[in-house]
Amino acid sequence: KTEAGREVFLRLVAGAQVVVENFRPGVMDRLRLGFETLKEVNPQLIYCAISGFGQDGPLRDLPAYDQIIQGMSGTMSITGDPDTAPYRVGYPVCDTIGGLTAAMAVSAALAGGPERPATFIDVSMLEATLATMGWVVSNWLVAGQAPAPHGNENVTSAPSGLFQAADGALNIAANKQEQWEILCRHLGRVDLLDHPDYKTRERRKEHRTQLKAALEQTLRSRPAAAWAEELAALGVPAGPVLTVPEVLDHPQIAERGMVADFPHPTKPDAQLRLLRPGLKINGEAPAVERPPPALGQDSDAILEELGYDAADIAALKGAGAF
Amino acid sequence: KTEAGREVFLRLVAGAQVVVENFRPGVMDRLRLGFETLKEVNPQLIYCAISGFGQDGPLRDLPAYDQIIQGMSGTMSITGDPDTAPYRVGYPVCDTIGGLTAAMAVSAALAGGPERPATFIDVSMLEATLATMGWVVSNWLVAGQAPAPHGNENVTSAPSGLFQAADGALNIAANKQEQWEILCRHLGRVDLLDHPDYKTRERRKEHRTQLKAALEQTLRSRPAAAWAEELAALGVPAGPVLTVPEVLDHPQIAERGMVADFPHPTKPDAQLRLLRPGLKINGEAPAVERPPPALGQDSDAILEELGYDAADIAALKGAGAF
Repeated sequence: KTEAGREVFLRLVAGAQVVVENFRPGVMDRLRLGFETLKEVNPQLIYCAISGFGQDGPLRDLPAYDQIIQGMSGTMSITGDPDTAPYRVGYPVCDTIGGLTAAMAVSAALAGGPERPATFIDVSMLEATLATMGWVVSNWLVAGQAPAPHGNENVTSAPSGLFQAADGALNIAANKQEQWEILCRHLGRVDLLDHPDYKTRERRKEHRTQLKAALEQTLRSRPAAAWAEELAALGVPAGPVLTVPEVLDHPQIAERGMVADFPHPTKPDAQLRLLRPGLKINGEAPAVERPPPALGQDSDAILEELGYDAADIAALKGAGAF
Repeated sequence: KTEAGREVFLRLVAGAQVVVENFRPGVMDRLRLGFETLKEVNPQLIYCAISGFGQDGPLRDLPAYDQIIQGMSGTMSITGDPDTAPYRVGYPVCDTIGGLTAAMAVSAALAGGPERPATFIDVSMLEATLATMGWVVSNWLVAGQAPAPHGNENVTSAPSGLFQAADGALNIAANKQEQWEILCRHLGRVDLLDHPDYKTRERRKEHRTQLKAALEQTLRSRPAAAWAEELAALGVPAGPVLTVPEVLDHPQIAERGMVADFPHPTKPDAQLRLLRPGLKINGEAPAVERPPPALGQDSDAILEELGYDAADIAALKGAGAF
């Protein structure tokens, strides 16, 4: 906010490996904190800019939030039924795909080792999202097949999608011939195995609507959880549709230690529950070492590390640098 | 497939930095190609296993495809309107989030340098997906607020979501007070600025349904593209809902060079179009260097690199190792 604050930032950068920012292109330059400036104080700096559309191109200057990128990436156009699409994904998936892509690129740049040159990484949320869309994009680019909304059907196979059981929905993805055969036997529907419309995956895809109805005749006789458990145990991918609280309470998440409890940073006697990253390394979930700090909690310690003494720190705060 | 094939694989691993596999836990051990075996031939190996639920826990042995993880992660439960949810995301987002998380973790392990110890990375698609869900998860863990489906409304702010214009839908995310004020002025709706129900972001969130209707009275007078372009130029995040072909043809994607054309590997005179990764490094989009090979196209060259001569290669192929 002030010249003194800018000096503090430059000292921080001099000792850092990575700077990540999420401004629109040009903002860091206007603050005189752009890549060209920062690499002068740190010739090995990895500078990662995450923006809606990237650092160049006709849309570079436009503002973007997750909702805008969900709409422009085509994600919304293919989510929902033909008569209800477009739908947004119920969480800010493009925000986190942008962040995850940035984390990957920064990690890859760090693998260049301590002698690496300064590196500018330009992550576009729009492009990062497109890059996750896999066959939906390549079906169009390679085969000219325009993606469409297909409700809860996974159109790459059949039976594959959401089905109604006695008490609600379950997912079944019997994508392989073997899985299809086990499914029919377990449901007591060997009649479907002999039906000419269902002989091959391609035939089943063509007749997926009538096949779904035929399977649901049987699935509706028992609860979703029972079917899901039995089918999965037999090797047929199947599972319930859980709410967020249900999955976070699931024994799988608990046993894997994916939720960590901390003393709450501002409320005595309260707990703060945090999710760990979605992976383990050598059998350990990477630890969340401490809860998020309260605003400004670590400022003094960081300023001291940067070589400021108590008088400097008081002056910086007095000048409104923090 | 054969003992000779296994020997080839071990030679490959001896010269590799990373092995990535996507089997159910235990399959690589059964093939006598598990981490304990492979790190004997390569003590710096990074071994990354991507599975539906992770290498331990009660669900470890269950099969999983994207659809199953979409259902179990809570993603489907919050996608759609209250009366249409659950909906799957229209592309295999959990598959790619698993892959992207693995790419991040492998890159981070590579940053450990050539002297690193052998490393086992265990990516759970279920947990990787949860880790991308951000405030949806923390609203529950920290604040006890159960996530729910909210259609196309971004419930963290208002007006923020999908709106109907004269010819169809557009997204507007006027999440900041300033953006709200610019929006009303541009729409000629300063009456809304003075309305007590809309004074603050929190008030607007409480009255979001009536606010949406009020804005659509005006938005329905002109096409979505015009509103989106004008609002974005004024700094109010706004954008159209594009199809996948529309976004891939957008000048932003073309100018950024995100689509690469190659001669088709098997069809003479045909082109193969591929999407590049969603980022640039030092101003360059990481190149897709060549199109995907046809099946087995590079086998001989790789076997030669591994030290097999022509007679060995013929013997390997004769033995059905490939």
